[in-house]
Amino acid sequence: MTIQVGIIMGSDSDLPVMEPAAAILKTFGIAYEVTVVSAHRTPLRMIEYATKAKERGLKVIIAGAGGAAHLPGMVASITTLPVIGVPVKSSNSIDGWDSVLSILQMPNGVPVATVALNAAKNAGILAAQIIGASDDTLNEKIAAYKRAMETEVLGKVEQLRSKGQPNAFDPS
Amino acid sequence: MTIQVGIIMGSDSDLPVMEPAAAILKTFGIAYEVTVVSAHRTPLRMIEYATKAKERGLKVIIAGAGGAAHLPGMVASITTLPVIGVPVKSSNSIDGWDSVLSILQMPNGVPVATVALNAAKNAGILAAQIIGASDDTLNEKIAAYKRAMETEVLGKVEQLRSKGQPNAFDPS
Amino acid sequence: MTIQVGIIMGSDSDLPVMEPAAAILKTFGIAYEVTVVSAHRTPLRMIEYATKAKERGLKVIIAGAGGAAHLPGMVASITTLPVIGVPVKSSNSIDGWDSVLSILQMPNGVPVATVALNAAKNAGILAAQIIGASDDTLNEKIAAYKRAMETEVLGKVEQLRSKGQPNAFDPS
Amino acid sequence: MTIQVGIIMGSDSDLPVMEPAAAILKTFGIAYEVTVVSAHRTPLRMIEYATKAKERGLKVIIAGAGGAAHLPGMVASITTLPVIGVPVKSSNSIDGWDSVLSILQMPNGVPVATVALNAAKNAGILAAQIIGASDDTLNEKIAAYKRAMETEVLGKVEQLRSKGQPNAFDPS
Amino acid sequence: MTIQVGIIMGSDSDLPVMEPAAAILKTFGIAYEVTVVSAHRTPLRMIEYATKAKERGLKVIIAGAGGAAHLPGMVASITTLPVIGVPVKSSNSIDGWDSVLSILQMPNGVPVATVALNAAKNAGILAAQIIGASDDTLNEKIAAYKRAMETEVLGKVEQLRSKGQPNAFDPS
Amino acid sequence: MTIQVGIIMGSDSDLPVMEPAAAILKTFGIAYEVTVVSAHRTPLRMIEYATKAKERGLKVIIAGAGGAAHLPGMVASITTLPVIGVPVKSSNSIDGWDSVLSILQMPNGVPVATVALNAAKNAGILAAQIIGASDDTLNEKIAAYKRAMETEVLGKVEQLRSKGQPNAFDPS
Amino acid sequence: MTIQVGIIMGSDSDLPVMEPAAAILKTFGIAYEVTVVSAHRTPLRMIEYATKAKERGLKVIIAGAGGAAHLPGMVASITTLPVIGVPVKSSNSIDGWDSVLSILQMPNGVPVATVALNAAKNAGILAAQIIGASDDTLNEKIAAYKRAMETEVLGKVEQLRSKGQPNAFDPS
Amino acid sequence: MTIQVGIIMGSDSDLPVMEPAAAILKTFGIAYEVTVVSAHRTPLRMIEYATKAKERGLKVIIAGAGGAAHLPGMVASITTLPVIGVPVKSSNSIDGWDSVLSILQMPNGVPVATVALNAAKNAGILAAQIIGASDDTLNEKIAAYKRAMETEVLGKVEQLRSKGQPNAFDPS
Repeated sequence: MTIQVGIIMGSDSDLPVMEPAAAILKTFGIAYEVTVVSAHRTPLRMIEYATKAKERGLKVIIAGAGGAAHLPGMVASITTLPVIGVPVKSSNSIDGWDSVLSILQMPNGVPVATVALNAAKNAGILAAQIIGASDDTLNEKIAAYKRAMETEVLGKVEQLRSKGQPNAFDPS
Repeated sequence: MTIQVGIIMGSDSDLPVMEPAAAILKTFGIAYEVTVVSAHRTPLRMIEYATKAKERGLKVIIAGAGGAAHLPGMVASITTLPVIGVPVKSSNSIDGWDSVLSILQMPNGVPVATVALNAAKNAGILAAQIIGASDDTLNEKIAAYKRAMETEVLGKVEQLRSKGQPNAFDPS
Repeated sequence: MTIQVGIIMGSDSDLPVMEPAAAILKTFGIAYEVTVVSAHRTPLRMIEYATKAKERGLKVIIAGAGGAAHLPGMVASITTLPVIGVPVKSSNSIDGWDSVLSILQMPNGVPVATVALNAAKNAGILAAQIIGASDDTLNEKIAAYKRAMETEVLGKVEQLRSKGQPNAFDPS
Repeated sequence: MTIQVGIIMGSDSDLPVMEPAAAILKTFGIAYEVTVVSAHRTPLRMIEYATKAKERGLKVIIAGAGGAAHLPGMVASITTLPVIGVPVKSSNSIDGWDSVLSILQMPNGVPVATVALNAAKNAGILAAQIIGASDDTLNEKIAAYKRAMETEVLGKVEQLRSKGQPNAFDPS
Repeated sequence: MTIQVGIIMGSDSDLPVMEPAAAILKTFGIAYEVTVVSAHRTPLRMIEYATKAKERGLKVIIAGAGGAAHLPGMVASITTLPVIGVPVKSSNSIDGWDSVLSILQMPNGVPVATVALNAAKNAGILAAQIIGASDDTLNEKIAAYKRAMETEVLGKVEQLRSKGQPNAFDPS
Repeated sequence: MTIQVGIIMGSDSDLPVMEPAAAILKTFGIAYEVTVVSAHRTPLRMIEYATKAKERGLKVIIAGAGGAAHLPGMVASITTLPVIGVPVKSSNSIDGWDSVLSILQMPNGVPVATVALNAAKNAGILAAQIIGASDDTLNEKIAAYKRAMETEVLGKVEQLRSKGQPNAFDPS
Repeated sequence: MTIQVGIIMGSDSDLPVMEPAAAILKTFGIAYEVTVVSAHRTPLRMIEYATKAKERGLKVIIAGAGGAAHLPGMVASITTLPVIGVPVKSSNSIDGWDSVLSILQMPNGVPVATVALNAAKNAGILAAQIIGASDDTLNEKIAAYKRAMETEVLGKVEQLRSKGQPNAFDPS
Repeated sequence: MTIQVGIIMGSDSDLPVMEPAAAILKTFGIAYEVTVVSAHRTPLRMIEYATKAKERGLKVIIAGAGGAAHLPGMVASITTLPVIGVPVKSSNSIDGWDSVLSILQMPNGVPVATVALNAAKNAGILAAQIIGASDDTLNEKIAAYKRAMETEVLGKVEQLRSKGQPNAFDPS
């Protein structure tokens, strides 16, 4: 199965934050790879990764990084593929603001699709939506995922009621 | 030509900010539509727009909004399509922070691909990259666009030199 | 007893933060209900809840949510009832700023009565004040509640004095 | 006609920001008064205003202030009526953050219903919703106001279309 | 001994933060009192405290409060004495920003001498400096305190050296 | 007349912001001096100014500075006099946050009495209050100043009424 | 004369902000070059510039960029030379915070010597100090520059005095 | 061996944060000293340290401080040497913002080479780069250090692969 999504991160210490991206892609049956590509410590590896991504068959790149997070934007400067940026709240980050702004505020011409702080799971879902935009089978899986989320919430509604929380709302 | 990208905004006052998204899509030859869909003033229209987007043939939705900007996230809660959010720095915004955080910080399960403050042009490019991930002709146009940006910068380099700025760097 | 206040939240994980709203309403003898309504995972349930709120006899809706908190504003877009928003400092929130700004910075036409971060108790008191504006018996209960707070502080004053903190202030 | 809403502000220089509150109340046919009450320059007047508000027949107080904005919270500390706070972005304000946080972050026991920065119009609408919660005629006026907002947006939709913006979305 | 400094705080939960103010005043031999005065829960007590402060012989008031911290500014609105404000980082504070801005950003006419977040010790020193501006004996105590701080640092310098940290700097 | 207040600033470009401090001191009949003392460009002058301040008869120093504003804190490190810091919003300041935090957040042992951004007038009033704490004639002038502020507000109240703003509040 | 300092910027629109770096280097007699190197639009040019900088004889690189400013950090990831970063407050920047944090918050191993927002002049002085650390002639020029700044301030002191500002401070 | 780098800090409590600067300098074989110099508690020691630094043979000064961090900037105001500032996130700091802004936002004429929050290791590397700009042996050590960082990352890449993370990227 061709790998469609590359999940890269600036440091292996970001792995616990980034793993939910891989997990949700597995759920959707999308082949992915996970590796470390550091903009600051392996700039040439980063250039090569970004340069070859399209020809290797990738359709989306998910890049996570913290602090002065340059990896997503630098990869986006080279590849023509959509790049999803995950701001990671690393240890000496200033409350995550540095990661968020370094990834989000890209100049005209080079977008990064930024998701919420530490939101690797959402990065995986967004990658699936991007591929699913041209793949109806996958798109239907996403629709099912959304229905499952709704069902889960409705289960919580009943749980609260059964635990004695008053609730007179009976939706049609 | 089937419309592939829907550009929506919370208010027609956002149009000057959002027009570059349309302009760049036109450059790439991607059919789009532009309309006003307000999460807060026309919630049912928003529900309907998001519900029908996929069946109407759209592949990506670009949604711009300012302040407590709920439009991108609410559309993303309904559609299975990728949604690109453009935080708009509106008049009473608190320096744009409200728009950025309201769009970016989506909960698990419902991503919004957020771009920089007022960066509608980048939203258009990202939409093209998303469609281009499964369309090699379009992808090649994006590659050409990137080469043109590079050429433009190199032109500026020469301009600076010809205006007398010293510069001894001769790249290979 | 007709339910007068609906307390809703985006996720059952917000329940510990939101329960003080219910507790204080119980103190004031105001009937309420507590349930989960997610703007992002159950948008249609949200629409229906907001649409039926007035005809079901509710007078105020208290809505708590974290991160890109769209629930209070979206409910306010549909109902004519006053909506009180409680910004919840959820786990991946950026210090609560996202919740606060997403709820507070509503556009013209659709206000949300925002209270402090995690201040569900104050949301309950505000709901009581709103109902009490047209209900003198309830209003007197609120007055008594305020007097009790004052008495409690005066007790602390004496406690400090009895623990040896010097204090020569003898109010009239 | 009994005055139902008191609109107060810390300085007459806040009047241009606060006038939309009065204008929208007039639209809804709600009697109001407008005056200056400064927490810092006329503290005793503030105490008296807040103390007498309920007995004078007011149902809601709207208080606008900038910088270290203490007026809304101090009035709320005295009256049992619901108090709506309007953070005003005054000249030496630090981008409005001071006004917002001074009004919003009230301690347990004393809520202020805070609206967006400079959002006096929304304060007026919220006051109407609060009174309308126990007044069906007024509530219907608010419903009509919401329908008018919707209609206005739909007019903009057509305007954009007639100006040549492509739009294939035909809602049911 | 006449009490010269009043230390007040919005809640007895602020006592651990505020006690260093009392401790340093004791060191300087300045008589003080410590009590709870809540702007929001005991507004009339606050008015009376501030009104009588001067005639009771106080020369400085130190007021600590957190969140929407109105106590220092409101006391300053009434008394002619200098008021020192201590922003307290309370539990639901937004990182202390609310306390700092609510105390610092007072309007023209009513200053509060604000010290750093939680810096009650500095509030005590500042009170001593204010009284010492007209009291040479006290002023000399402050000078001695400053020399002692210097000596303490020089002791640390030697400690570091004796623990093996290289240091070739020998001041004259 | 002995100079009692020294007004210093880091740059003569701060003069327009700092002049209201001088103006209000003149109103109160307090002798002052105004000069430029730059922590960064004239550090030795700063040391000498701070060292001699007390012996020259000064009772309070008002220091204004912008950006990384070190002047107030450095002067406070040397003198035993109370130092009032005025954060100046200079041209390349980051919205004034740098000036505010550089002045306010002093370490234990060395307080600076910080006033609001650009609030030189309040610095002058605070200086008067500090001197007035031991000078009853001056204290009475401050009391009169406060009464005049109150009267001015009451004048605005009547102005608003006479311009047709409805107002039924008649204080006792 | 060998070029010792390379001044690069992400866009020629940054030139007005960056020119003071060149001007001050000229004052110190240090040869420099000025060119455009965009991390995002010419990544390979950036790689080559950084790779060749040391062998071309440069001793310091000054890099200015705005928004998600990756240029300084990326150049620093490749070269062994010290890199000075100038955060530029560009048009759609969020008040300069994005530029500052993207440049400053570099991970362990790859420092960027960051100066204040828009502070290109200081970047030039810092470059001179770096070269001057091993060049006593240059170091003496810097010392002279500092003395000139001091003299300029003293001139302002006299100017203020001659314009009538009272000032009794006569330094030794 | 002549000491080339002075590492100073405002308080010995900053030592754990600052020690990595010393450690990395030791790795590079650069002689250094470590001592406490407090801008606020030992201003004269600071003046003397900065005044003598150049004549004592230092080439770079690394200064760490927290809160209203004046040490780096004040040392820079006196010495002609390059000064590297390390913002320390101390206990009552407002999330580190105060330290960062107090060090970074220096006025024209007096730069401080600021590194990331708590980034003493990077301060040490930057000091090495500064000295290495005129010392080819040291410069080669820095180059080796950079290659070692790259090798370490590549080791992590293999580790991830061997732990079963899919990865099809084989760089040339």
